[in-house]
Amino acid sequence: MSHASSGTLKHRQDRLRRNLADRSVEALVITSPANITYLTNFTGSSAIVVLAPQSVLFLTDSRYVAALADTRGTASECPDLSLVVVEGSYDAALVRAIADAGWTHVGFEAAHLTVSRFQWLEARLFQSAHCGLTPTDGFVEAFRVVKDAYEIDVLKEAAARLSRVADDVLRESRVGLRERELGVIIDARLRDAGFQRPAFETIVASGPNAALPHARPTERKLTEGDLVVLDFGGVYDSYCVDLTRTVAVGRASVRSRAVHRAVLAAHDRAIALVAPGQSRFAVDAAARDALAEFGMAEACGHGIGHGLGIEVHEDPRIVRRRPDIEVGRETIESGMVFTIEPGAYFPGWGGVRIEDDVLVTDSGAELLTQVTTELIEITGNH
Amino acid sequence: MSHASSGTLKHRQDRLRRNLADRSVEALVITSPANITYLTNFTGSSAIVVLAPQSVLFLTDSRYVAALADTRGTASECPDLSLVVVEGSYDAALVRAIADAGWTHVGFEAAHLTVSRFQWLEARLFQSAHCGLTPTDGFVEAFRVVKDAYEIDVLKEAAARLSRVADDVLRESRVGLRERELGVIIDARLRDAGFQRPAFETIVASGPNAALPHARPTERKLTEGDLVVLDFGGVYDSYCVDLTRTVAVGRASVRSRAVHRAVLAAHDRAIALVAPGQSRFAVDAAARDALAEFGMAEACGHGIGHGLGIEVHEDPRIVRRRPDIEVGRETIESGMVFTIEPGAYFPGWGGVRIEDDVLVTDSGAELLTQVTTELIEITGNH
Repeated sequence: MSHASSGTLKHRQDRLRRNLADRSVEALVITSPANITYLTNFTGSSAIVVLAPQSVLFLTDSRYVAALADTRGTASECPDLSLVVVEGSYDAALVRAIADAGWTHVGFEAAHLTVSRFQWLEARLFQSAHCGLTPTDGFVEAFRVVKDAYEIDVLKEAAARLSRVADDVLRESRVGLRERELGVIIDARLRDAGFQRPAFETIVASGPNAALPHARPTERKLTEGDLVVLDFGGVYDSYCVDLTRTVAVGRASVRSRAVHRAVLAAHDRAIALVAPGQSRFAVDAAARDALAEFGMAEACGHGIGHGLGIEVHEDPRIVRRRPDIEVGRETIESGMVFTIEPGAYFPGWGGVRIEDDVLVTDSGAELLTQVTTELIEITGNH
Repeated sequence: MSHASSGTLKHRQDRLRRNLADRSVEALVITSPANITYLTNFTGSSAIVVLAPQSVLFLTDSRYVAALADTRGTASECPDLSLVVVEGSYDAALVRAIADAGWTHVGFEAAHLTVSRFQWLEARLFQSAHCGLTPTDGFVEAFRVVKDAYEIDVLKEAAARLSRVADDVLRESRVGLRERELGVIIDARLRDAGFQRPAFETIVASGPNAALPHARPTERKLTEGDLVVLDFGGVYDSYCVDLTRTVAVGRASVRSRAVHRAVLAAHDRAIALVAPGQSRFAVDAAARDALAEFGMAEACGHGIGHGLGIEVHEDPRIVRRRPDIEVGRETIESGMVFTIEPGAYFPGWGGVRIEDDVLVTDSGAELLTQVTTELIEITGNH
């Protein structure tokens, strides 16, 4: 498994440190697992990181100490790491570490700390260190949204591997095969292709089930005339990629072809618009406008895309502009990686979704997943 | 897939409602996915539930409306459900729903709401409805810790299926097989046995890797003389079960046998102590005392067990008593289901873990997983 180099980690940490100074906090408590991975390469399930001016305080328990020691002296070692082995409560250890450091203004991640933990920490920190906690919002995420060279390399490799899995499994749909069985085949191919795990629960949605964008595989057998939505992704070297194709079992009906054509037009139109400086809401609108031209304006109830990285759903969100949601960063930038995945769903009948992963380049978009977007008709029985 | 009956859901909701009244809140906002499943049978990824005196407000988006409609009129329909279809922001829809209802004292789950969301909701609710938010802690969880008849049936069935998977895969370890390949085999068997998905990332840790309690499968090939820790679980009808066995590749060494014997003694001693009225700390101590008798007092860095249910790690925690952690409910009660999983780990050499799932009965413990605890020696090549 590859990891970001120590130099890359150092660069990420130092950029954050410079921004921390602007917020009048001496150190930042990081509790988001994805942010911890980004800053330290750690991928275990339990840790707290405190980004300090000269060091990275790393709190974890005995389960992970050996794994961490194994990285010492390697090219992907976390720089300036100061280990605190937690025995008992993580939050009690955090209070002691902050009191020992003597800080009085510490930031925390408001979107990744629960009210329970915040109240407990706030009371104890004030009591033992006269230290106040300042909320920050999306502080590390603001950097993660634009991928660095290491991340782009990993995402390209992951998407190439996912494309090969797709080439392979798109032809596995057979009359009589159950959705669940096809899901098992896809998951096994993901592992064989070097993915650590599926990035989410693989979707195999056939016939009327294809009208549910988040269907789970059932015992339903694939039947002549079905459209089958296959939506799957994998985690490769900690990074997530995601792909959807819809195939026809037997000959596709006239309606199936028409819906597929509309969704493909939406997909192509959105990707054509992706470029630095573009609005993410405009990309969403381009896909919906294309669907509307086919009379399917209301057929897509979900967003047109989402960022990919250490998390399978991260910023930027390619969605409709809504009056009740704060806008956040609207502009697409070079180095962002996200999905484009329009769909059209008709309850009782079925649906189509086509999803690819794109990298924003200086001049437009590079398609990271490379799989035919033709409507494949599968013949043959299970 | 089976679900709790409408009657069971009604019973759960009404018990909570009676307790809500004691807290001086008119309604409770539930944001924990596991608690939402417990009260409504919903297993999608996005929803907010408000438990109200006469109804269950159910907020979800268009992706899940069709799936929810399919449950109407079935035996597992959520009683008194009042659907709110969310377009845009969930939290904005929640504020409108609370304002419409006219409540002024609403509880929320402090352990399942982030500081960001709390601050946003608090400000908007005060502004638009003069409504205050009261934190609650472990309110639904306090009921979930003791399983009802439906849950016990599901957990028994899940554990029986997991035991059959174990019988099967324990004999799959072969010299030359890679950890990753064996992990793929285990995950496929879990699916074939009817599990929706693995309950966590399957652990196959061989040779020195077995010293890491949370090892991930690597490309290492199993080698004559290895101990191999196999730790896997599945989600069946939304409920999690979890099992570990350690096998020897080829003839086990004298040291391997000694460590296995010590861990098995710890496992048996802890299970023998499980009974209603017993302290969960005492059960943990019994396992550690047994290890100490073999000179391995410090060889187990993790807790001896954890509750099983809709989550794979829930209360009760079978752990050491710690001065810095609030005790919570100490006493074991009939109807609790948890793992007993002592281990002994020696960096550079390897380790052993043995894990079973137990149900607390009126008189003691019933073993839900039934798989040999002998040290199996696997012969034959890949």
